[in-house]
Amino acid sequence: SYGQATTAGALERAMDELLRRAVPATPAYELREKTPAPAEGQCADFVSFYGGLGDVAERAELLGRLAKGFGVDHGQVAEQSAGVLQLRQHPREPAVLLLAEDRLRYALVPRYRGLFRNISKLDGGVRFLVCLRADLLQAQTLKLLEGPHLREMDGVLKSMLTEWFSSSFLNLERVTWHSPCEVLQKISESEVVHPIKNWMDIKRRVGPYRRCYYFSHCSTPEEPLVVLHVALTPEITSNIQAIVKDCPPSETEDKNHITTAIFYSISLTQQGLQGIELGTFLIKRVIKELRREFPHVAAFSSLSPIPGFTKWLLGLLSSPKEHGHSPLFTDGEAQELAELLGGPVGDTLKDFLSSHEWALSEQLARALQAPLMRLCAWYLYGEKHRGYALNPVANFHLQNGAVLWRINWMADQSRKGLTGSCGLMVNYRYFLEETTMNSTAYLGSKHIKASEQVLSLVSQFQKSSKL
Amino acid sequence: SYGQATTAGALERAMDELLRRAVPATPAYELREKTPAPAEGQCADFVSFYGGLGDVAERAELLGRLAKGFGVDHGQVAEQSAGVLQLRQHPREPAVLLLAEDRLRYALVPRYRGLFRNISKLDGGVRFLVCLRADLLQAQTLKLLEGPHLREMDGVLKSMLTEWFSSSFLNLERVTWHSPCEVLQKISESEVVHPIKNWMDIKRRVGPYRRCYYFSHCSTPEEPLVVLHVALTPEITSNIQAIVKDCPPSETEDKNHITTAIFYSISLTQQGLQGIELGTFLIKRVIKELRREFPHVAAFSSLSPIPGFTKWLLGLLSSPKEHGHSPLFTDGEAQELAELLGGPVGDTLKDFLSSHEWALSEQLARALQAPLMRLCAWYLYGEKHRGYALNPVANFHLQNGAVLWRINWMADQSRKGLTGSCGLMVNYRYFLEETTMNSTAYLGSKHIKASEQVLSLVSQFQKSSKL
Amino acid sequence: SYGQATTAGALERAMDELLRRAVPATPAYELREKTPAPAEGQCADFVSFYGGLGDVAERAELLGRLAKGFGVDHGQVAEQSAGVLQLRQHPREPAVLLLAEDRLRYALVPRYRGLFRNISKLDGGVRFLVCLRADLLQAQTLKLLEGPHLREMDGVLKSMLTEWFSSSFLNLERVTWHSPCEVLQKISESEVVHPIKNWMDIKRRVGPYRRCYYFSHCSTPEEPLVVLHVALTPEITSNIQAIVKDCPPSETEDKNHITTAIFYSISLTQQGLQGIELGTFLIKRVIKELRREFPHVAAFSSLSPIPGFTKWLLGLLSSPKEHGHSPLFTDGEAQELAELLGGPVGDTLKDFLSSHEWALSEQLARALQAPLMRLCAWYLYGEKHRGYALNPVANFHLQNGAVLWRINWMADQSRKGLTGSCGLMVNYRYFLEETTMNSTAYLGSKHIKASEQVLSLVSQFQKSSKL
Amino acid sequence: SYGQATTAGALERAMDELLRRAVPATPAYELREKTPAPAEGQCADFVSFYGGLGDVAERAELLGRLAKGFGVDHGQVAEQSAGVLQLRQHPREPAVLLLAEDRLRYALVPRYRGLFRNISKLDGGVRFLVCLRADLLQAQTLKLLEGPHLREMDGVLKSMLTEWFSSSFLNLERVTWHSPCEVLQKISESEVVHPIKNWMDIKRRVGPYRRCYYFSHCSTPEEPLVVLHVALTPEITSNIQAIVKDCPPSETEDKNHITTAIFYSISLTQQGLQGIELGTFLIKRVIKELRREFPHVAAFSSLSPIPGFTKWLLGLLSSPKEHGHSPLFTDGEAQELAELLGGPVGDTLKDFLSSHEWALSEQLARALQAPLMRLCAWYLYGEKHRGYALNPVANFHLQNGAVLWRINWMADQSRKGLTGSCGLMVNYRYFLEETTMNSTAYLGSKHIKASEQVLSLVSQFQKSSKL
Repeated sequence: SYGQATTAGALERAMDELLRRAVPATPAYELREKTPAPAEGQCADFVSFYGGLGDVAERAELLGRLAKGFGVDHGQVAEQSAGVLQLRQHPREPAVLLLAEDRLRYALVPRYRGLFRNISKLDGGVRFLVCLRADLLQAQTLKLLEGPHLREMDGVLKSMLTEWFSSSFLNLERVTWHSPCEVLQKISESEVVHPIKNWMDIKRRVGPYRRCYYFSHCSTPEEPLVVLHVALTPEITSNIQAIVKDCPPSETEDKNHITTAIFYSISLTQQGLQGIELGTFLIKRVIKELRREFPHVAAFSSLSPIPGFTKWLLGLLSSPKEHGHSPLFTDGEAQELAELLGGPVGDTLKDFLSSHEWALSEQLARALQAPLMRLCAWYLYGEKHRGYALNPVANFHLQNGAVLWRINWMADQSRKGLTGSCGLMVNYRYFLEETTMNSTAYLGSKHIKASEQVLSLVSQFQKSSKL
Repeated sequence: SYGQATTAGALERAMDELLRRAVPATPAYELREKTPAPAEGQCADFVSFYGGLGDVAERAELLGRLAKGFGVDHGQVAEQSAGVLQLRQHPREPAVLLLAEDRLRYALVPRYRGLFRNISKLDGGVRFLVCLRADLLQAQTLKLLEGPHLREMDGVLKSMLTEWFSSSFLNLERVTWHSPCEVLQKISESEVVHPIKNWMDIKRRVGPYRRCYYFSHCSTPEEPLVVLHVALTPEITSNIQAIVKDCPPSETEDKNHITTAIFYSISLTQQGLQGIELGTFLIKRVIKELRREFPHVAAFSSLSPIPGFTKWLLGLLSSPKEHGHSPLFTDGEAQELAELLGGPVGDTLKDFLSSHEWALSEQLARALQAPLMRLCAWYLYGEKHRGYALNPVANFHLQNGAVLWRINWMADQSRKGLTGSCGLMVNYRYFLEETTMNSTAYLGSKHIKASEQVLSLVSQFQKSSKL
Repeated sequence: SYGQATTAGALERAMDELLRRAVPATPAYELREKTPAPAEGQCADFVSFYGGLGDVAERAELLGRLAKGFGVDHGQVAEQSAGVLQLRQHPREPAVLLLAEDRLRYALVPRYRGLFRNISKLDGGVRFLVCLRADLLQAQTLKLLEGPHLREMDGVLKSMLTEWFSSSFLNLERVTWHSPCEVLQKISESEVVHPIKNWMDIKRRVGPYRRCYYFSHCSTPEEPLVVLHVALTPEITSNIQAIVKDCPPSETEDKNHITTAIFYSISLTQQGLQGIELGTFLIKRVIKELRREFPHVAAFSSLSPIPGFTKWLLGLLSSPKEHGHSPLFTDGEAQELAELLGGPVGDTLKDFLSSHEWALSEQLARALQAPLMRLCAWYLYGEKHRGYALNPVANFHLQNGAVLWRINWMADQSRKGLTGSCGLMVNYRYFLEETTMNSTAYLGSKHIKASEQVLSLVSQFQKSSKL
Repeated sequence: SYGQATTAGALERAMDELLRRAVPATPAYELREKTPAPAEGQCADFVSFYGGLGDVAERAELLGRLAKGFGVDHGQVAEQSAGVLQLRQHPREPAVLLLAEDRLRYALVPRYRGLFRNISKLDGGVRFLVCLRADLLQAQTLKLLEGPHLREMDGVLKSMLTEWFSSSFLNLERVTWHSPCEVLQKISESEVVHPIKNWMDIKRRVGPYRRCYYFSHCSTPEEPLVVLHVALTPEITSNIQAIVKDCPPSETEDKNHITTAIFYSISLTQQGLQGIELGTFLIKRVIKELRREFPHVAAFSSLSPIPGFTKWLLGLLSSPKEHGHSPLFTDGEAQELAELLGGPVGDTLKDFLSSHEWALSEQLARALQAPLMRLCAWYLYGEKHRGYALNPVANFHLQNGAVLWRINWMADQSRKGLTGSCGLMVNYRYFLEETTMNSTAYLGSKHIKASEQVLSLVSQFQKSSKL
């Protein structure tokens, strides 16, 4: 890290000097197509300086300076805006207006965009920018950076990445045991939904009755950008342990046993590509591929985790009770739970649910099934953020046009599943003829399409709850 | 063609209806990231309708309607401009200004850009847009279409193609006799500089002492975008017939005989990619590749045609003479030519130079050598368009930073060479350490770097000529 | 050629010296597994010496010396034979007999086999041996070499090649327009049945409604050993000009129009592989491949030339007539022909059939149809060599188990077809369930399975002919 | 297993019936080239029957019946031998003798060879035969099968495999972390010399400063037959733990640090290929490859285990001592050891050396170094089997022409290394110019070339020992 070798002021001066040198000046509008190619060294310097910054805070500092110091020239924008307005008031031939608008458009391009363009042409430059955007997002999450200039720069980067990672440049690749170890190691390491334990585990996930697909950019084959795991089953699976096992696969695949495709994990491997819609497009492409390979497969569904459910539930359990009784349970339920827990429901239950131990008691699990199922249904269906589903996985599948299909009890009994979502999982089902319509309805009027099971649980919740 | 089946009015109505359906509406600024993916059919319709238009005039008609009817909403632009100006006068926190600018930027995006984006995501969509731009350029050349809206649309398309055909997405491929026939047929058909006569001819151009490279986009391998032919020689070649032959190649390549790389042909295969700078970048990449393969190769040079030289010369010969003598020849030359031609130089010489027959007479050829050499030097060095070299091939290599190195007499004795440029060719030489500097000097101050041979010819011209 | 540089005696001495050095001595039986690997130079010398012999006669001389001078040690064979016989008379334990037999087996291995083994391990060594065998066969055809030692050496080479070109080491490759030019050039050059005229011709033969397959050895991919051309048609084609055309292919292949696969050309590209049964195996593999791709294709048939038919017929026309009338025509036919030819049938007809001009006269062609059809039927069905069909193409397909299906009039109107086989072609049809049975019947009892059309023509011939 | 379902007699009858059906009859000599291809089912039956035999004893039974019942027809052999002998006594023209010899050769081909040929043409048939030979060898090792017929059959199979796995059909493949997981898993599982512990271990063995190569047959790519691991080092390594580590590789390879190539493991992956000399050829090819990649690498050496050394040593320690003192140690050594062991050397030392614990005592280890080094030198140099080195690894490298270069103390401190060879390892060094000569000397006159270090240890042994 530079910080160790220099005083803070020295580092900042080095940053300013670097930026002055590396960020190309904006040529006059008339000369914009007569600029010689930049010297390669210029932006290579930026890349190596950035790589030498050991610490996320230092990187954030540099990005902040870039965003604030090398954005749009507001004076220019104002001047060109005035020009456009004047033509509005004193119209002349269209060519004049169009030229004025184009000058305005040109003025609105932030200067750092030139740096990003130049970097993108270096070997590995696009990959560098993806990482840079990941840093930018992380720095915002960590509150190291804030403010509109950073949001603007993120917007610019995102729109550049959107062009470069356009779906026509993505290759769908299938992973098998014949794929390079390099790829399988990357796939393993990027799997966060149901982490991969060992090599038999991953061998099974790419073996018979399983499919593992990823998108790579056509310029960087064998580099997974987003990964989708599919299980091929005779029915819509309600339990993840039926799919993810670490014993070696033994069977030969028999097409006749396959009627259903279960998407049981989807992971973005590069955080700098958030918001580029790779996941949505990957599901669509994989569905096409599966229909080609298995024309008779009739049902497509996810088997999805419900991250945040336990946390949300614990929050509810902590909120002040009205009139001395919990609004989350019916009186009968509250009483049964109190007996099993040996005390008032509130804090004891919170402790239980924070660990995975409640699931060991068959009685307790049975007593919790009904209330947790309807609470979960509500969490997914009723809890919102700006009008859309609060739960990010739900929001993802609903945007894609899936239906909130089935909530499954004891669906993930791993420690992670029990502590994160009380062992519950949910199927989002894709009816291929309806996804466009559902997607439009959700995005436009924020309507969630749900199955009868879910709607019935929601209505039970609404009756029993005083929320 | 639709035109035959319908009255003109009906076709135009069909066009309007198509565009209404296919060009997506611009969502409100707030909803710009909540738009569902377009139905595939929408823009596929546009593609197939367009493909069905048999005739370049009909296509031009449709493109004209698209450019004029679905551009920028000028009212919106004016409104947002006013917003920005107001903030200039009554400043508030930066977030407000940046938001206003972003809204303005959004308003400046023409609506047809949405159509192009959607098309680009179809299978083969990018290729379609390249062809569409080729049509657009051709329609302008043919004067079927004119006006600022078309230039704007061309600018939008060009900037999209520039992103998509970014150098990081281009693969350098070498063509050999082991390449697919498909590729060799495409290479053959796209070679317009020195057309390929038969399969022995092309086999030689990819055989020993030759290299043939092309760029393909990483999403469409085996589809040449721009092609460069190189000869590996012991010196800077002054004659194209020494390179291009249609007898089969026999020798084995001996690295020790190779000191020089001659770029003797570069062709863009897809006219819709004009202005994307593929050629410049290809030469750079090939130089890198050649230096890797032949570290001891010392000289890099083109052997280039001089399209337009004969035409320019004939123009001069037609212009009214001052005081009864041609300004193009010295008195001695004029007299010798008059004797050889059996009459006054003017029209007879024009007739001779229009055909390739003058070269058959050794005497005439000898008499013409000195004046044609200095006229050609002037044509390349002195004739300008907006300050840059008039000759497009010269302009291309000078922009790349090459030096106007050597004009070669009887360098292309093919009929095409004799009629197009009096058999003259020119070497543009690349001194690798100087190209950046030369390029900057040429683009900036319009200075042409030339060798002593050329400068001496130019000065002879200036002395002898009264132009 | 060495012959020019040296006297004949010197060349022969050089040969003897080379062979002494290059052919490894046979180690004693006990040490046969303790021989160090040969010095690479040893057999490389042989290869380069052989390659330097410019002339087939010189090569034949060397091969003759190798075959005669470095074969089996007859004394050893006799000695070991005696050993075996003695054990027959005075039996001992099995181990002793088996050892004696193994020693005898070892003694029966000709010494030159060691040379061939060593050569086979060089880079390109197997390819060299294939060429060497081609020379050996050609030398025998040209009567440059004869005798039992050469037949023995050919047998040894053939059995080695049979092991190396075992069907499990052959890869089936399909040729398309995306195959390397190198491969398409080789395919073109090796096509002798219906020679390829130009590049549109070959493009069509690898385009829609056509398949072109070859076997390569797994150690030398992209090197065709034997090539099969197939047309995919709606019926059993009776005319080669319907298949082989040199206009560019335009259609898109529609599987629904395909019910029949016509094998219209099969060529061995390397004459040294004669007798290894590559052709038979290629047809079997291609049938498998086609059934996989087109499960509904019902008929498999060749459309084959009848090389030698005209020659055979001219021979008959030349043979002395009995009782003043030709035995080949009925009296009515003879009379009609005499009128058309303007003279006695014999020599005039011979002249006509030797050229392709008779086919230009519609009347003559009509008059010849009936007699030529039945003569051809007899030629294919009745003319034998050691009990098997005299015509080599017929013998090939009958060995494979095909049925002599249909003789086709005016089936090949090319000059080659008219002069070689009076324009006739024949279909050998493969009924997949019957080929094994037919093959066994033909090879064992020499029975030819033929269709009713053919049998009826044969019986007409037998009635009309006095042969 | 069939054995469970049927009585032994029934299984044997099934075997006899199978063999009668599956082993093709030998056609008469005259018809040997007119045999129709065998029905595929015939030998496929054999393959599936054999695969169904669960138990090595049952397989051995079937192989025994095949070897004994379907070998050579001794009567035929005798008859043809007699024919040959008679021609010896009453000579006729050569053709007659050569024909008689060829008939004799034909008679000497065991009938089961036809079965093996037919199987070899099935998909996967060659692989099956390799496994069958592995069973045959194992059955002999386990004494389930014995006798000359089996040795004959093994010889026949081995000679067929030798043709099929000829070096011209082997592809050298390098394994990297980009190779298919399938390949890396196979490589890992087949590594018996220094077993692979986990995936970081194998990643390191294919990473920087390491090379891993294998041969595959060109018809079955990605199937390792024999594997060679190489370390690239600055000197001849004396310790295996410096090479084999299970921490992840971190460095980037720097060619300048590499002067030496150490072969530290070579494994045959398929036991059925024993005796085909794949290992020898692999080392030669890899040396060629390494010299191409690293022209300046000067030293090639193995770092080899000494399997059997501890066992041999314990045997010596058990043998009766003469005159009350051990012949293995000098009196001084014996005394020092006695003190350290707290009793007489003999049995106590045996116990120590059988485990790996002696190495924990620094004193004991120091006391043992001198005697163990010279004993090991003698074991490798002086102990023989039929005149060649008793130790199989030594015999392998000496046959290849390597020099017995250096014995290394504490070279393998793994439990396996300490118990198997007292922690000792040995370098066999390849001087490329001398290997052919050394190999010939070793195979012919059984001379072992050794370094001064080794010879000096041997002479110490000879002085001190009374063996």
